[in-house]
Parts: sequence; structure tokens; C-alpha cells
Amino acid sequence: MTQPSIDVIAIGNAIVDVMAPASDAAIAALGLARGGMTLVDPARAHELYNAMGPAREISGGSAANTLAGLAALGARCAFIGQVADDQLGEVFAHDIRAGGIAFATPARTGEPATARCLIFVSPDGQRTMNTFLGASQFLPAAALDDDAIRSAAVLYLEGYLWDPEEPRLAMRKAIAAARGAGRKVAFTLSDAFVIDRHRDDFRALIAAGQIDILFANEHELAALTGLEDFHEGIALLAPDLPVLVVTRSEKGAVAISGGEQAEVRAEPVARVVDTTGAGDLFAAGFLFGHVRGRPLAECLRLGAICAAEVISHYGARPEADLKALVAEKLG
Amino acid sequence: MTQPSIDVIAIGNAIVDVMAPASDAAIAALGLARGGMTLVDPARAHELYNAMGPAREISGGSAANTLAGLAALGARCAFIGQVADDQLGEVFAHDIRAGGIAFATPARTGEPATARCLIFVSPDGQRTMNTFLGASQFLPAAALDDDAIRSAAVLYLEGYLWDPEEPRLAMRKAIAAARGAGRKVAFTLSDAFVIDRHRDDFRALIAAGQIDILFANEHELAALTGLEDFHEGIALLAPDLPVLVVTRSEKGAVAISGGEQAEVRAEPVARVVDTTGAGDLFAAGFLFGHVRGRPLAECLRLGAICAAEVISHYGARPEADLKALVAEKLG
Repeated sequence: MTQPSIDVIAIGNAIVDVMAPASDAAIAALGLARGGMTLVDPARAHELYNAMGPAREISGGSAANTLAGLAALGARCAFIGQVADDQLGEVFAHDIRAGGIAFATPARTGEPATARCLIFVSPDGQRTMNTFLGASQFLPAAALDDDAIRSAAVLYLEGYLWDPEEPRLAMRKAIAAARGAGRKVAFTLSDAFVIDRHRDDFRALIAAGQIDILFANEHELAALTGLEDFHEGIALLAPDLPVLVVTRSEKGAVAISGGEQAEVRAEPVARVVDTTGAGDLFAAGFLFGHVRGRPLAECLRLGAICAAEVISHYGARPEADLKALVAEKLG
Repeated sequence: MTQPSIDVIAIGNAIVDVMAPASDAAIAALGLARGGMTLVDPARAHELYNAMGPAREISGGSAANTLAGLAALGARCAFIGQVADDQLGEVFAHDIRAGGIAFATPARTGEPATARCLIFVSPDGQRTMNTFLGASQFLPAAALDDDAIRSAAVLYLEGYLWDPEEPRLAMRKAIAAARGAGRKVAFTLSDAFVIDRHRDDFRALIAAGQIDILFANEHELAALTGLEDFHEGIALLAPDLPVLVVTRSEKGAVAISGGEQAEVRAEPVARVVDTTGAGDLFAAGFLFGHVRGRPLAECLRLGAICAAEVISHYGARPEADLKALVAEKLG
């Protein structure tokens, strides 16, 4: 096994976020589940966009956000995801490459358009996401760069992309390529409703030892295990996972690896502006520590620092100099 | 003369801003004039975009920003400007309508694309703008809604749009329609380089009494009058203008009307994040006071409050509830 030339390669949705503040009453009136992620068709996306206030566009996508954090911390990263040959596709491709991340998946011509996520941000920073998957759901297995996957220390996959068929097959193929090369596979469960749709798949992957690092939040842990109790959920999953990371919003996070358990408190934030990307950036910090061989507690702390940065402003990509921030916080 | 049913109708560039932080060294290395606005062709826009860090997209356009502020304050507004039939055109149209501004100019099919302004934001908040005018420069005189112009108390025009031929002709036609209906014409000089290109036109408009309210900053005043001294510049221009407003960045602003002169200090800002739109939002506050018949000093104060809000965050459109902010500040 050669030394990896990439730290983390990720497969994820290639999405541009369209974000606007909204009251909880307006979110409820639109029939949206506050805090959730709902897939929407073009007609519903149109309807929701019409109901949205003046917005801003910022590149997003769960795994892509994680890579943006990793690259900002100094990791070598590559992204695989499908945009369309349109203006928002150019925006996504620009932003990810400008962050120093290799991105070679060719844009897809014709309809549908590049994926968009309409995000209503509540006054307390909670985000309610409505995703039009567009071109992103047509990522073909042929778009995988097997050489790149084999040369990355970690293959990172987002559960959101398990919904559409083509990317799901691509991810299964990528897992095989990574494991065949002796690399690690990290997976983020993304959303409790995604788990409801694919619980058996996810459980089977874990039981078969295909996942080395699993990221979940409390709700996703409960959805996956069927156990409401946080500790029972961890006890059930941990034996099948080399690394299990569970985030708990303002209660911090827990990681279990090889019988060792570590915890971290949430990093204080002056004002929570927009929680979009909190989990993604937690994963970025954690994975950065992991690929650098840092102790479990430090990996968690890195995750908490990065998550705190991203929720202190609009958008799911880091704005601060994460390297400097981490250096300052860890001393 | 019937009562106006619109407070302010504006003709301006329909632009989406693409904004990213940049060091002054990077701005210099790209050959850009820090703080300026440069028109760029597609090749140069492409080159600059490639050199730009991860960005965010926020609707802009000078006059459109002013309307966004006016509408947020409670004024009835309408916008005339040209987007293309593309994704960024949809973004611009959505954002302006979502702000409560009437916008009926049909999107233009085919090339070029919707206008974009690549904005490099320095650590001190200074913005360096590079505008690809795209579809915006093809606003035809036929797009004017003469009835709407005649029913607006103020027609507001941006100097930036004096560069391309078609919109310049459209604006001349609009001035005639507004004045013919006994309405006021407000004009913002936009940029010293724009004045260099059109000094004779602007001076002729003022000398002919076609402009009722002129907005300029210190540099634009000097460029228009050829007088370096601020007071001499004002003394030269004021007699030909019912209202002259000169903004002076951190030194505040001055307004002269009918022999009365008023001044305002700059509103304190905790941190200047991005000065894009400072002049646009100053004009919004001032015009709001003007159409509501407020005293000159209060118009200036409204301008200062709105400008302070917009420079405290990224993007040239207001984020805070300007109505509430003004109510709080003016007591």
C-alpha cells in the first residue's frame, strides 16, 4: 500500500444553497418541517422560492462543505459530484476549486439544472432545507476516479446521496475501490428521514464492516438503531465501528473508538446565526485530526471549533481562517 | 398632476454581485485599482473569477440596492433593468421582487448573460469592483414603462448605466417622461471614472435643470467640477441643483437645498465588513426622508443610518429590519 497522496476524497451532492431569513410562523405556513431536509420537485422548488425573501447564494452540499473545512485546515482534498452545465454549476465548481479542492467531474449537459437547496433560516439560527437535487442525482458510477479513490487515506460519503439510484451505485463502487486499496471509508448519516428510507442498507454496510468512521447526530443515531436512549444507541453501534462520532448540538459530541470514549463540549458562540453546515464542519475538524493521527479528544475539539465557526455566520462554508483559529484555540 | 402611486422608480444595472475577501496584495497583483469600478469583458471576467477565492452571490446593482433600502423602509418602489433569461437573471428578479419592488422588465433571451460584478473585498472593507455588464447594457428604451415613470414621485438614475448606449438613450427618454409629468429626477454619479467618460453629458443635464437631486461622493464631485477643494466644488454645483448631496465616507455627508446646508456625521459601525453599497444605501435613506417630506438634516441622518447598516455585513442589500433600525435610532 503506497502512501496516500490525498487525505480525503468525498462523493456528495453538488449543491448551491439559496438562503434567506424566515420567521418560524412563515416556515410553518409553508408546510415545512422546521430543522429538516425535504427533497422537492421543480414545481415545489418554484413555489418555495417565490415565497422566500431576498436571498443569497452560497455553495453548499454536505460532503463538499466538509471538504471546504478540511482544505481550509490544510488537508489535501478531492471532490466527486455532479453539476449541470449552467451558471450555478459554474458557481459550485469555482467555489470548490477556489478552496483548493481537486474537482474533475465533468458538468452534465442539458436538463435538469444544478442542484439547489432553498434554506429558510429561523431567528434562532435553525435551518429548514428544501433540496431540488437536479443534476446531482445523476452522478454516474463512470464519474468515479478509481485512481484518486485508491490514493486517498479516507473516502467520505454523505447519506443524502443514498436517495438517488445512480449515485448510490457509484458510492457502492467507490467503497469497494477504497477498501480494496486498504483505505478507510467514512460515512455521514445526514438526516433521520434519509435513514428511514435506507435503514436496512446502512445497517448492512455497518454490519459488513464496510464503514470505518460513522458520523451521526442524536436523531440519526435513534433513527438508525431504533433506540431513543442515546447511550443505548451508542452501545449497540460502537462494536461494529472502528470510529463512531455522535454530535449533540449544544450538548457537544461523543466519539468512541477501540473501546476508548471521548467527549467534547460545544464551543461557545457569541451568536448562532445559521446552523447550516454545523455537522459538516464538525466532521471536517474531526477528520482533519483523524488523518493527522491526533488523539480522539483532540479530533472532537477540532470538530467543535470548526462547527462553532460555521454557525456564527450565514452559509455552510467556513469564512474565518480555520488554520489560524485552530492554532489560537488549541494554543 | 395626480398624486404619485409610486415613491421612487429607478433605472439601473441589473447585476448579481460575486463577492470574496481578498488581500490588498492580491488585488494589486491582479492589476486592479483598489476601491474602483472597472468594466470587464468576458475573458477578463473569467480570468478574475479564476483568481478569486470561494465567493458568495448576492443581488446588487447600484440603483437596485437603493430601491431595496427604500422598500425596506416602507417606500413604494419600481425597478427597470435588463436581465438575461438565465439562472442569475432569475436570482436578480427574485431578490428584487421578494423585497417588495415592482419589476416588470422582461428577461432578454440569448447571449450575453445576466450582468455580474466580481467584487474583491479588502480586510478593511474596501471593495474593488469588476463589472461584466452582459445583458444589462442592452436595456432598450422600449422597456420603459412611461405610465409608471409618470406616476412616480422620483425617477432615480444611476450614472453607471450612462456607459452603454441603449440604456443611456432609455434614461434620456425617461427623464423627459418624468419631467413632462412634473416629477423629480434624482441622479447618482456612481464613479469618478464614469464621470471622466461622460463629464460633458452630466454637466449639460445639470445646467439644463434636468436633475433635481444629485448624489455624489467627494471624488465624484471633484471629477465633475474639476475642483479638488470640496467646498469650492459644492459652491460651483449647488446653484444649479434643487438638492445636492455629497457623501464623504467616514467624514459623513453634506446636503444643500435652496440655500440651506445640513451636515451629518457618519453613523458609528462596530466593524466595517464590506463597503459595497454604502453610497447606494445612503441614497436610499436620504430619498426616503425626501419623499416623506422630512427636513434636510433628517434625510441625511436616515442616509447615514442605512449606509452604516449595509457596510456592517457582506453584500449591498440591507439585512437588518431598516424600519425598526431607523425607529430605534431616531427615537
